[in-house]
Amino acid sequence: MPPADAKVIGELMTRADVQGSEGHGIFRLPQYVRRIKGGAVNVRPNIRVEREAAGMALIDGDNGMGHLVMRFATETAIAKARTAGVAWVGVKHSNHAGPASLYASMPVAHDMVGLYLAVGNANHLPPWGGIDMLLSTNPIAVALPAGEEQSIVLDMATTVAAYGKVKTKAQRGEMMPEGWMMDREGRPLTDPKRANEGFLLPIGGYKGYGLALIFGMLAGTLNGAAMGKDVVDFNNDDTTPTNTGHAIVAFNVEAFQPVAEFKQSVDGLVRDIRNSRKLPGVERIHIPGEGSHAARADRFKNGVPIPEALLKALNQLAGELRIAPIG
Amino acid sequence: MPPADAKVIGELMTRADVQGSEGHGIFRLPQYVRRIKGGAVNVRPNIRVEREAAGMALIDGDNGMGHLVMRFATETAIAKARTAGVAWVGVKHSNHAGPASLYASMPVAHDMVGLYLAVGNANHLPPWGGIDMLLSTNPIAVALPAGEEQSIVLDMATTVAAYGKVKTKAQRGEMMPEGWMMDREGRPLTDPKRANEGFLLPIGGYKGYGLALIFGMLAGTLNGAAMGKDVVDFNNDDTTPTNTGHAIVAFNVEAFQPVAEFKQSVDGLVRDIRNSRKLPGVERIHIPGEGSHAARADRFKNGVPIPEALLKALNQLAGELRIAPIG
Repeated sequence: MPPADAKVIGELMTRADVQGSEGHGIFRLPQYVRRIKGGAVNVRPNIRVEREAAGMALIDGDNGMGHLVMRFATETAIAKARTAGVAWVGVKHSNHAGPASLYASMPVAHDMVGLYLAVGNANHLPPWGGIDMLLSTNPIAVALPAGEEQSIVLDMATTVAAYGKVKTKAQRGEMMPEGWMMDREGRPLTDPKRANEGFLLPIGGYKGYGLALIFGMLAGTLNGAAMGKDVVDFNNDDTTPTNTGHAIVAFNVEAFQPVAEFKQSVDGLVRDIRNSRKLPGVERIHIPGEGSHAARADRFKNGVPIPEALLKALNQLAGELRIAPIG
Repeated sequence: MPPADAKVIGELMTRADVQGSEGHGIFRLPQYVRRIKGGAVNVRPNIRVEREAAGMALIDGDNGMGHLVMRFATETAIAKARTAGVAWVGVKHSNHAGPASLYASMPVAHDMVGLYLAVGNANHLPPWGGIDMLLSTNPIAVALPAGEEQSIVLDMATTVAAYGKVKTKAQRGEMMPEGWMMDREGRPLTDPKRANEGFLLPIGGYKGYGLALIFGMLAGTLNGAAMGKDVVDFNNDDTTPTNTGHAIVAFNVEAFQPVAEFKQSVDGLVRDIRNSRKLPGVERIHIPGEGSHAARADRFKNGVPIPEALLKALNQLAGELRIAPIG
């Protein structure tokens, strides 16, 4: 792919690792390379605005790497929101783009609120009461600028645990707590090595099923992207385009109220929450995004830790591609 | 209030009962009257667009009844979305407006998708790990038009149970299941008569806390409406304006793709979900909104059942207001 594009993707993947979203950073490189080699991803996409109105745009990602498509979509949303106040940008024909919060956070530097929805790239969730895995862990991320406090950044899957957490438990030889997964008979599934015998559980039971469905319809169906049985499992397929759908919304705070007043309100709310009296045994009340802000500070100072197994996989990949190993 | 306004409110409250949202229909009338008498609500509001840009508007409800304010806001969103494609309308200085799905569903008749967020009118939820009730059950509702199938309508609080369900359990002398509430020591609270000794639990633990916070910030903080400790408990206060915040979004499907194609995709998804294989013991897989569609059909035919205690309360209210009793 063009070196400029590779640089953008590399930077966004690095940002994922730096903010502690290890499951969405360089960990994904072997899979990305496999799918590029398999012809599933277009390395010279013509990413473009296909439809546009004052408050929205629909981006056709031309099957490019999700990072490129989502950077284009988010920049489009930010630019439009300057005059439109709020701009909703839908995306189709995209691919896996890394952590949701990466894109939701981009508008924050422009004194905007960001909201991101996506259709996940593998179905691990059946409708409530069913066993056919028709839904993904369709995430939502929202980021809001603060004043003296750090920005609030929520980034969550609509399942109790994301599938990456199940994989991590399996790698470590640990059992999962009850409530993460269920088998096809409706019994709790706690052995992550048996993950393919069951499915993830949505948050709040039928409510999380509803959220996964609705977020998926807004990010997928509305944009003409894959949803339901059309979702391609990109873990087990190196040749089929995914037609991944996303939605990114930028809210220009200034359109609603003076930016300084808004930031003051956010600061006040953050402090009220942090200073709430606590349940016995609770040391600290967390604000969404605190973890990634802390990871970023730590990793800028100390670097990004790369587990031995991942380092080995990356160096093997480097060998196959005849480029220098990491070290 | 002007008879035309009373008629609008009456119609929307009736629609709530007809769709089976009993906790948001005529059940609320005594409380509404009490707050109007107490001067907490403005019966002659000047509801207006305070700020506007191509993709958004901010409505000042002038402390009018929430139904009037939200009808105005939703009509504004629908009108703007015709040209803007997507229109996000924020609302401040409003009041309780009934069930979330009432407003999310209005765009559907115009071949639009509707999305509604609100700050609830009483804080029953602490931040995760805390015991100060700084958050409400801040709901989300999304409605999407279908073709031959019925529209999909999700309407949910971000807590495991809405507070109305706790009240209903108390009235019936029943215990609550574990997981609905917790006391200030972190123990399960199952006696609904002790509800004031504890608080509601969010769906998915910290995830539901995050959703309640974010939905509240988008519907409240961004609009300059009450959020966090500024929320007025309208159950226990008949004199203070609530400055209730809402957000309503209308998505003109035609801006994204041909309406017929979208509806066909929704129909296909609904059928795939309904026809999923089921867990043992599950008779039917539900689509969000099915329950309210069924209630509407039943009540158009058989009328709206009014429990004895509510009928008595309404007739007592009629006596106080010197108007004819219901019967």
